[in-house]
Amino acid sequence: MTQGTIYGVGLGPGSQDLMSVRADRLIRQASHVAYFRKKGRTGHARSIVEGLLAEGAVELPMEYPVTTEIPFDDPRYNELLSAFYARSVAQLIEITDAGRDVVVLCEGDPFFYGSFMHLYTRLQGRVALSVVPGITGMSAAWTASARPVTWGDDVLTVAMGTLPEDALAERIAQTDALVVMKIGRQLDKLRRALARAGREDEAWLIEYAAMPQERVVPFTEVSGSVPYFSILLIHGNGRRP
Amino acid sequence: MTQGTIYGVGLGPGSQDLMSVRADRLIRQASHVAYFRKKGRTGHARSIVEGLLAEGAVELPMEYPVTTEIPFDDPRYNELLSAFYARSVAQLIEITDAGRDVVVLCEGDPFFYGSFMHLYTRLQGRVALSVVPGITGMSAAWTASARPVTWGDDVLTVAMGTLPEDALAERIAQTDALVVMKIGRQLDKLRRALARAGREDEAWLIEYAAMPQERVVPFTEVSGSVPYFSILLIHGNGRRP
Ligand SMILES: C[S@@+](CC[C@H](N)C(=O)[O-])C[C@H]1O[C@@H](n2cnc3c(N)ncnc32)[C@H](O)[C@@H]1O
Ligand SMILES: C[S@@+](CC[C@H](N)C(=O)[O-])C[C@H]1O[C@@H](n2cnc3c(N)ncnc32)[C@H](O)[C@@H]1O
Repeated sequence: MTQGTIYGVGLGPGSQDLMSVRADRLIRQASHVAYFRKKGRTGHARSIVEGLLAEGAVELPMEYPVTTEIPFDDPRYNELLSAFYARSVAQLIEITDAGRDVVVLCEGDPFFYGSFMHLYTRLQGRVALSVVPGITGMSAAWTASARPVTWGDDVLTVAMGTLPEDALAERIAQTDALVVMKIGRQLDKLRRALARAGREDEAWLIEYAAMPQERVVPFTEVSGSVPYFSILLIHGNGRRP
Repeated sequence: MTQGTIYGVGLGPGSQDLMSVRADRLIRQASHVAYFRKKGRTGHARSIVEGLLAEGAVELPMEYPVTTEIPFDDPRYNELLSAFYARSVAQLIEITDAGRDVVVLCEGDPFFYGSFMHLYTRLQGRVALSVVPGITGMSAAWTASARPVTWGDDVLTVAMGTLPEDALAERIAQTDALVVMKIGRQLDKLRRALARAGREDEAWLIEYAAMPQERVVPFTEVSGSVPYFSILLIHGNGRRP
């Protein structure tokens, strides 16, 4: 029996028709579909493909043992996640060893800050892997802002809200265009970093880009908390004829 | 008569099945399709949609008056391009004023260093505009490299090869993950900048990502010239469980 292939399939930013034609085909034809989710939730990736799966497709939800309950830098966080990824890899290999392919659903682009990467590096060399790139959340965010993000020689910096404040302030000051992802609990720190760089007035917050709840707000008008699917954006102003 | 809409449609990196389901639908149904090209060429965007256009679809090739014959910083370059964009805008508006929609084909993602942006800002406020994001060339490049590009808190810097050597060297030294686009004639300068940052051994060149001629080479093995569709990549190595 030939071993199956594991497909890491980018779903794009959240609207079903923003997945690629290749992703759409692979998902409709899949006999086995795996995806990450928080325990007790549908899972965002799963909800994007609602209505697409073939009848009788076998679903393999991979449930995070922990998300934000333990801080990133606690050694237990790493241990728990490592064990979880190892278990998920074993489950996937079991399916491919039985000769079947598995489609793993990935939000946005799989290789861009994605969870699938943790499986991918553990699977490499053990099974055939195929990755389908996807439209990133940031592409949907600048599209939602109705303004191009980079012109001419503009430098674009992509940073995570989880960076220390000093690092954020420096990055913000030194770039033309900016994307900050993973904002959630980092909002106040991010606001201070923007102020230190003197760029609050240029910043936009895009929530749920390409989803029904999509919202674009000047960052200075953001108050309270922001959802997980939020991106901060500063547009470049580079050379243009 | 209602005025038509202009759609700026991202085609993705070059493989037909990497365009989004939405792009695919809009292109198949389009009565009018516009795209940029060099005089006397098919045009790369047009070639990506080969076989998809409806019978009788009207094509509007917009031919650059100049590409690399005049340097960017020559004032004539700006004048020629400005006039060209103004003419293209007038042609598009003529179609929408006649009540028809136009699909403008855009390589990759329209708002990410794309030519369509020059039309978009001139059209804004004059006609209904709708932009469909696309998979970027860089997503296809890191997918081709078979290695995730950013982990944990990694910073990703996207820079153009057309930047001065000092700026390039500094950007390369200060980032975790790196993407350099528009490399063409900038290869020697880019090589020196990488060397100054001490990062030549980490760099990969990806040519024609997601196209039949796709090629991934360690940057130190690149010699001679590189094609227009080339991206330099350094992968991040950030936090991971
Ligand atoms: C773990 S990263 C995954 C990124 C994903 N692989 C991609 O290509 O966009 C999650 C972060 O991406 C951002 N994000 C992804 N999709 C988004 C969307 N549609 N709208 C707003 N933010 C989004 C948010 O900042 C979120 O915290
Ligand atoms: C004017 S920019 C357009 C970028 C495009 N809008 C995108 O989203 O990728 C052109 C540059 O993009 C890069 N590029 C775009 N698609 C590529 C691909 N499939 N393979 C390699 N490089 C690509 C090259 O560096 C090229 O010089």
